[in-house]
Amino acid sequence: MKKLRVGIEGAAGYTGGELIRILLNHPKVQIAAASSGTFPGQPVFMAHPNLRGRTDLAFVKSLDYKALDCLFIAGGHGDSMTNVPAIIDMTKGKIRIVDLSGDFRLIDPEAYHTWYGKTHEAPDLLKRFAYGLSELNTKEIENAKWVSNPGCFATAVALALGPLAQGGVSGVVSVTAVTGSTGSGASPSLITHHPTRHANMRAYKPFQHQHVPEVEQILDRLSGGRALKLSLIPVSGPFARGIYAVCQVDLPKGMTAAKVKELYASAYKNRPFVRLLEWPPSLNAVVGSNHCDLYVSVQDGRVGVISAIDNLVKGASGQAVQNLNLMMGWDEAEGLAYAGCFP
Amino acid sequence: MKKLRVGIEGAAGYTGGELIRILLNHPKVQIAAASSGTFPGQPVFMAHPNLRGRTDLAFVKSLDYKALDCLFIAGGHGDSMTNVPAIIDMTKGKIRIVDLSGDFRLIDPEAYHTWYGKTHEAPDLLKRFAYGLSELNTKEIENAKWVSNPGCFATAVALALGPLAQGGVSGVVSVTAVTGSTGSGASPSLITHHPTRHANMRAYKPFQHQHVPEVEQILDRLSGGRALKLSLIPVSGPFARGIYAVCQVDLPKGMTAAKVKELYASAYKNRPFVRLLEWPPSLNAVVGSNHCDLYVSVQDGRVGVISAIDNLVKGASGQAVQNLNLMMGWDEAEGLAYAGCFP
Amino acid sequence: MKKLRVGIEGAAGYTGGELIRILLNHPKVQIAAASSGTFPGQPVFMAHPNLRGRTDLAFVKSLDYKALDCLFIAGGHGDSMTNVPAIIDMTKGKIRIVDLSGDFRLIDPEAYHTWYGKTHEAPDLLKRFAYGLSELNTKEIENAKWVSNPGCFATAVALALGPLAQGGVSGVVSVTAVTGSTGSGASPSLITHHPTRHANMRAYKPFQHQHVPEVEQILDRLSGGRALKLSLIPVSGPFARGIYAVCQVDLPKGMTAAKVKELYASAYKNRPFVRLLEWPPSLNAVVGSNHCDLYVSVQDGRVGVISAIDNLVKGASGQAVQNLNLMMGWDEAEGLAYAGCFP
Amino acid sequence: MKKLRVGIEGAAGYTGGELIRILLNHPKVQIAAASSGTFPGQPVFMAHPNLRGRTDLAFVKSLDYKALDCLFIAGGHGDSMTNVPAIIDMTKGKIRIVDLSGDFRLIDPEAYHTWYGKTHEAPDLLKRFAYGLSELNTKEIENAKWVSNPGCFATAVALALGPLAQGGVSGVVSVTAVTGSTGSGASPSLITHHPTRHANMRAYKPFQHQHVPEVEQILDRLSGGRALKLSLIPVSGPFARGIYAVCQVDLPKGMTAAKVKELYASAYKNRPFVRLLEWPPSLNAVVGSNHCDLYVSVQDGRVGVISAIDNLVKGASGQAVQNLNLMMGWDEAEGLAYAGCFP
Repeated sequence: MKKLRVGIEGAAGYTGGELIRILLNHPKVQIAAASSGTFPGQPVFMAHPNLRGRTDLAFVKSLDYKALDCLFIAGGHGDSMTNVPAIIDMTKGKIRIVDLSGDFRLIDPEAYHTWYGKTHEAPDLLKRFAYGLSELNTKEIENAKWVSNPGCFATAVALALGPLAQGGVSGVVSVTAVTGSTGSGASPSLITHHPTRHANMRAYKPFQHQHVPEVEQILDRLSGGRALKLSLIPVSGPFARGIYAVCQVDLPKGMTAAKVKELYASAYKNRPFVRLLEWPPSLNAVVGSNHCDLYVSVQDGRVGVISAIDNLVKGASGQAVQNLNLMMGWDEAEGLAYAGCFP
Repeated sequence: MKKLRVGIEGAAGYTGGELIRILLNHPKVQIAAASSGTFPGQPVFMAHPNLRGRTDLAFVKSLDYKALDCLFIAGGHGDSMTNVPAIIDMTKGKIRIVDLSGDFRLIDPEAYHTWYGKTHEAPDLLKRFAYGLSELNTKEIENAKWVSNPGCFATAVALALGPLAQGGVSGVVSVTAVTGSTGSGASPSLITHHPTRHANMRAYKPFQHQHVPEVEQILDRLSGGRALKLSLIPVSGPFARGIYAVCQVDLPKGMTAAKVKELYASAYKNRPFVRLLEWPPSLNAVVGSNHCDLYVSVQDGRVGVISAIDNLVKGASGQAVQNLNLMMGWDEAEGLAYAGCFP
Repeated sequence: MKKLRVGIEGAAGYTGGELIRILLNHPKVQIAAASSGTFPGQPVFMAHPNLRGRTDLAFVKSLDYKALDCLFIAGGHGDSMTNVPAIIDMTKGKIRIVDLSGDFRLIDPEAYHTWYGKTHEAPDLLKRFAYGLSELNTKEIENAKWVSNPGCFATAVALALGPLAQGGVSGVVSVTAVTGSTGSGASPSLITHHPTRHANMRAYKPFQHQHVPEVEQILDRLSGGRALKLSLIPVSGPFARGIYAVCQVDLPKGMTAAKVKELYASAYKNRPFVRLLEWPPSLNAVVGSNHCDLYVSVQDGRVGVISAIDNLVKGASGQAVQNLNLMMGWDEAEGLAYAGCFP
Repeated sequence: MKKLRVGIEGAAGYTGGELIRILLNHPKVQIAAASSGTFPGQPVFMAHPNLRGRTDLAFVKSLDYKALDCLFIAGGHGDSMTNVPAIIDMTKGKIRIVDLSGDFRLIDPEAYHTWYGKTHEAPDLLKRFAYGLSELNTKEIENAKWVSNPGCFATAVALALGPLAQGGVSGVVSVTAVTGSTGSGASPSLITHHPTRHANMRAYKPFQHQHVPEVEQILDRLSGGRALKLSLIPVSGPFARGIYAVCQVDLPKGMTAAKVKELYASAYKNRPFVRLLEWPPSLNAVVGSNHCDLYVSVQDGRVGVISAIDNLVKGASGQAVQNLNLMMGWDEAEGLAYAGCFP
């Protein structure tokens, strides 16, 4: 069988590195090219030393989109909306796209302006991208050609709350979500400076993180109306990988623990990457894999949902490949069916 | 001036070590004796290598209570209620006590039974211990002879919520609080095994932590009635020291951000250890000191309060010394007026 | 093709978990059974939460050796020498064995007594086990039926020094080698207690680590005589996985940097897991994979060699599978040809 | 008594912050001013959040040297040699100086050029600065007006090896020294980027670190001739604070373990900050304090010396204050007589 030719744009960043790592072992895909503005002409191991010896691939300065069947865009927020229209044009719309930026996640260009602070440059395309929350938007992804991959916080929280939305739970959900430092990317900055990140915890953007609207958008869709409102306080944690989200909300009167568990069992039935646990998840049991571990606890009319993912895998590159699999009609676990290391 | 003779029971544990470290630099106190069942006769540096060369103190097997002016009890939960009645008896009630265990925190023996799983052995004493939340129960501590030191989670959360209780805020507060591994003590166990604690996050006892009732008890007192209910999900974090608590609750209609800030400014006016910040606290700015850093954020009728303490200092031994200072009528910062290291 | 039926003894420990994780993706192997004295009858995810959903395997109390083609022994040091003779007997010597304990690494039973503190119970077998340092003892492993897997420190250091031994370098090598906490296993202990391991460094057993003689033994063989003597100071590091070894030794007069590099290039030519770098290795570029990254620096007649491995993969379970591959005449990278995550 | 008026130049960096933290509790000193080019006019807690509430000090843009009795220079390497001549001139040589940069550590301007890559601008001053290794160059410091504070690696290694030099041990010492990330300062960079520093180890500048010549210079002086040569491989470790140095060298024939221990006992007799242990030091027992913990192990004619310090305290600001104390004829522990937190 001829392998799918994929290209990776912005491949020198962390999500780009994870895409290469995953796709190297994907049986139906070949990496045709990977681009980087910083490392053009250099072997990929200059940015991703783990890949040394595993591939001879070198970064190219820019991709030849016409030679690709599928494009993963792992560049910065704001670049995709500038570039994608031309890419679609140039390839006559034949190219599949999984965009990992935030540019095509919100359907409403006004919302984009509100949360990202700039005017959207390709508002017509917003409705044509499927929101790539693999387990809860499956049909749309399967029918899509272009997928907008969710944010890492959004993935952890939306998978935690989706079944509640489907079950008609409404109200304000309190969420504390702690992120690893890789979430801030490969460029050094004050918030990822080791001396101050090490052994530290620091909340930021309380109630104002830009992943809030994409979660509310998908929860609205799952509930058939604006039901769950997100009250999110993100926290920078002292680890490199992972999102650990703790969510709490009141249940409707009469909704039992059994009913709640049923909602989750039903939502994630036969889905290989969401694991429902009998106790709270450990972050280090999902890191390195595409799993999302969930635990649901009900007490006194209140439900707590705890969610753990690897921000670079299920929260980015792994889910991107899962979405490719869904688009192509392949097994969604193709190339992703392995565990991370523990501990 | 003659120095106060203090004894430390259970001095080989982490809170015991911190008591010694702090009291060695306290100008009005001398450590008369420190006991340990594990290290009797050995120098304190066998348990606390940081103290080597700073003191010649050796552990004794048991304390001579009659030779003491004040006793710090840093032993296990459940031991204090067994031993304290006899100690009081033996010393004819002359000895001051700061108990760091959970035994005398709850006024209601029924509540003790519910949350600690055993019958209280000294129920008559419960009302005679002051609850040692230094900043919010000051008067009672100043007038007390016996103080029950709050739990570490309780300190972080009660300092975060006290002003709201005083201001009449009511309802369910969602709290996620992350603790360092020293909170589990000096004995190795599965939950503090480095390979699995490192780079990990893991929630535990959702809605069921034993510090919940002591926080609700003090908030009730501050509000003049049952106003705030705590919905707490504790999390084990991958650092050694600190509690980082993130709290959220709806505000009463019409309560403005300015009013909320005023509540905090008023509650902590002239108190040296609670610092009100203009941005979310960093855990590593309080570790090693007796500070509690707080940040309050109001949006859309909802308030977020974020609180950071060192669990072994403000959450245990530092606050214990602060309570001694209050009981003795000394400056509450005596022996505690220093910053921790940063970073 | 019929898959090789392998069994794993002591499969609930960290090396056992890694064996399962690796072998689940090995195309030529099926895990027939995995035993655990602690978790008999329970699913493997009770010990290895990362494997949940990746296998339905449950631990058995004990293995039926006769039903196996190959046995991996991941139990405690000292157990193998007691059990292996009976296993060989019972299976009429037909079973292949990779023993991960220290029991069959030293050829000389006297040396075993000296370094392990007990009399060897199966001295006749010592010469019949091949020492499983895959890259430097390849021929012997290919011809073996029973392999003794090297220790983690031994692997890192012997791969670093083997080419020097082959090149005739002699003298005392100073080695500082830092290990992650998983090297001490899955049972909690004082040395792996998170509060004291976190952000700490602590040397132990200076000049007296039991991996010294197995390294000297293989270096002797490679040099054709006692040439290099190991002066090793091991250090406990504040990370979970990895060995980072820093070695220094004087070069023979006239041995140039070019000659040294040639020794390494030649020793590891066409070997997929040893990567020779142009700069010092980063531990996190090898963790999660079977790679050993090496850097060689020559200055003023002195050579520094720096070596990085994942102690549980190349230092244990990965190399064990590599040795199985060699014994079976398969590609040595079968089932191991992937990168770890970075960062 | 009138307090000594000290100024701190470059006070917004990590060593500057530590100087402020330490001097705030020094009974004989007042901080007259602290300068920062980045934070002029802002309170010191903007750079050092731990100090909030402990001082009202704000950074000034530049210091008025004439108003100072003593100046600590905590700026960048290369700035001191440019500025110090003018400062001395302006103050008519009356000002005491402790310079924390590398500019005045080497007596030989040629050596400076070799190791720092530039021509020294004030070669005449080199001989007039005392090398501030407090315990081993005490007399010179006591008689000095200007002190050049040693580097952090240099402090750890020179304290480890000084007694051997005094005892006539010669030859090449192999040293592996691991440093925390604060050693690279407060500005973010690739080598202190949390995702790649976390859980990592990485050697750098093997045999070529610029602290080598200052160690050899002081060892030469202690031995009365070039006796010990340093072969140093530095390693970046995954912790924020500390230097952990592991040293090995052959002993002269006939030098016994008892003789070696005697050398150390004698060298550090009555010195409060060097602690000689009966087992290898733990880094976390010295962090936050001015201690250097040493362990000496002798076997088969070889000695291993292991040394642990806090790089920002004994390796920088703490030793700087200790040197001030020595210069002033005060108790060398003034303002420094406390333990760090453990764990």
